[in-house]
Amino acid sequence: MTEDRLAALETRLRQLEDERDIARLMASYGPLVDSGAAEEVAALWEPDGVYDIDEVYLAGREQIRAMVRSSAHQGWIRGGCAHVVGPPHITVDGDEAVAVCHSLMVVHEEGRYVVRRATANHWRLRRGETGWQVTTRTNRILDGRPESPELLATGVRGEETRS
Amino acid sequence: MTEDRLAALETRLRQLEDERDIARLMASYGPLVDSGAAEEVAALWEPDGVYDIDEVYLAGREQIRAMVRSSAHQGWIRGGCAHVVGPPHITVDGDEAVAVCHSLMVVHEEGRYVVRRATANHWRLRRGETGWQVTTRTNRILDGRPESPELLATGVRGEETRS
Amino acid sequence: MTEDRLAALETRLRQLEDERDIARLMASYGPLVDSGAAEEVAALWEPDGVYDIDEVYLAGREQIRAMVRSSAHQGWIRGGCAHVVGPPHITVDGDEAVAVCHSLMVVHEEGRYVVRRATANHWRLRRGETGWQVTTRTNRILDGRPESPELLATGVRGEETRS
Repeated sequence: MTEDRLAALETRLRQLEDERDIARLMASYGPLVDSGAAEEVAALWEPDGVYDIDEVYLAGREQIRAMVRSSAHQGWIRGGCAHVVGPPHITVDGDEAVAVCHSLMVVHEEGRYVVRRATANHWRLRRGETGWQVTTRTNRILDGRPESPELLATGVRGEETRS
Repeated sequence: MTEDRLAALETRLRQLEDERDIARLMASYGPLVDSGAAEEVAALWEPDGVYDIDEVYLAGREQIRAMVRSSAHQGWIRGGCAHVVGPPHITVDGDEAVAVCHSLMVVHEEGRYVVRRATANHWRLRRGETGWQVTTRTNRILDGRPESPELLATGVRGEETRS
Repeated sequence: MTEDRLAALETRLRQLEDERDIARLMASYGPLVDSGAAEEVAALWEPDGVYDIDEVYLAGREQIRAMVRSSAHQGWIRGGCAHVVGPPHITVDGDEAVAVCHSLMVVHEEGRYVVRRATANHWRLRRGETGWQVTTRTNRILDGRPESPELLATGVRGEETRS
């Protein structure tokens, strides 16, 4: 009886910790990318993880690091920008997880701010030896292209993308 | 002694799970509504739940489904839009709960994005047989009308609205 | 054995509760400040806590209350505004914690909304007799000044600011 209750508590607590770990990982992306921390951004992904953005397809940590160090991205930082990653909806299934959220890229422009991109974010994550990491993150701008709402729908249902 | 500690752990864990369930429900609204998932949006509410927006008063799931399927809402999706529901502040009291957050409706417009609405959100929720559902969600645009800040204040205090 | 498992569960649960308490405090700031709740805003800080904004340096609760009651802030409320505090990344270390997030100040302007400020937020918090409170919150606008990305980087690493 005590044994059963202890085991049940451990399982439920582990579930909450997994969700916390994933939410924390996702909440670290914006601060890291907006401060140009290329190594730490890349380390959120598995070594051969994918960051599939409509503008560019990044395969593996080296390409993710290179994106952060690119003159384009450094220009956003120098001008002022905020990658705001919205509250996540997370579905954990054993050692795999799917998460979904919106993100806003807000950039400084002549003393004001404009929202340059509003994006659907679909995350696939996997538990590794050192904790959760991103397997594939798929971002599509919400500009009316049908694949972006579809990403949101599959993400919130805890499903993988169809690609 | 062991019994007391187990019972205390179970109660505290249940509290965290309730808050997680409510946060997860709230985080699902944006992805579902931006992908036009009318059935799933409506199912966040109790069958006769209310979604009271300044622009329209929706009573029951059928009216909520109809809003998602309306040509107006479908037009937003076709043009590109993001309903970003901010981090929630949640107060659980037994089988009832009050939550509060901001939301931003960001819409695509000629290659840029504009914030069409910034809104105070007050949520009342109830635990049902299948989990937490929305009883009444009250949204008021933050355009200077006094009821919007009042919604934020009552929500963050865990109080119901006065209406 | 049972004793060890109970103690481990209590420690892990306490960690999640600490993070929940801090996230809840942070999520209360926006609703409170946008509804002009000066006393409750100030009570988020320790009595001599600091709110260090690029525009103004507020030392202690009396100055924080005065900011909320100022004609400038009351003007924002009357015109319509949303202080959207983004999802937090929290690092707890015993009775101290560091958190980081973005915030957006969205203001109503002639029937539309503009993002007036996008800001890096670095929070230091301490556990007191009545729970967690803010020791120092440091906000710097993301307009290209180097200290703002640096705040994000130190915050996400769980480090204190260098000043």
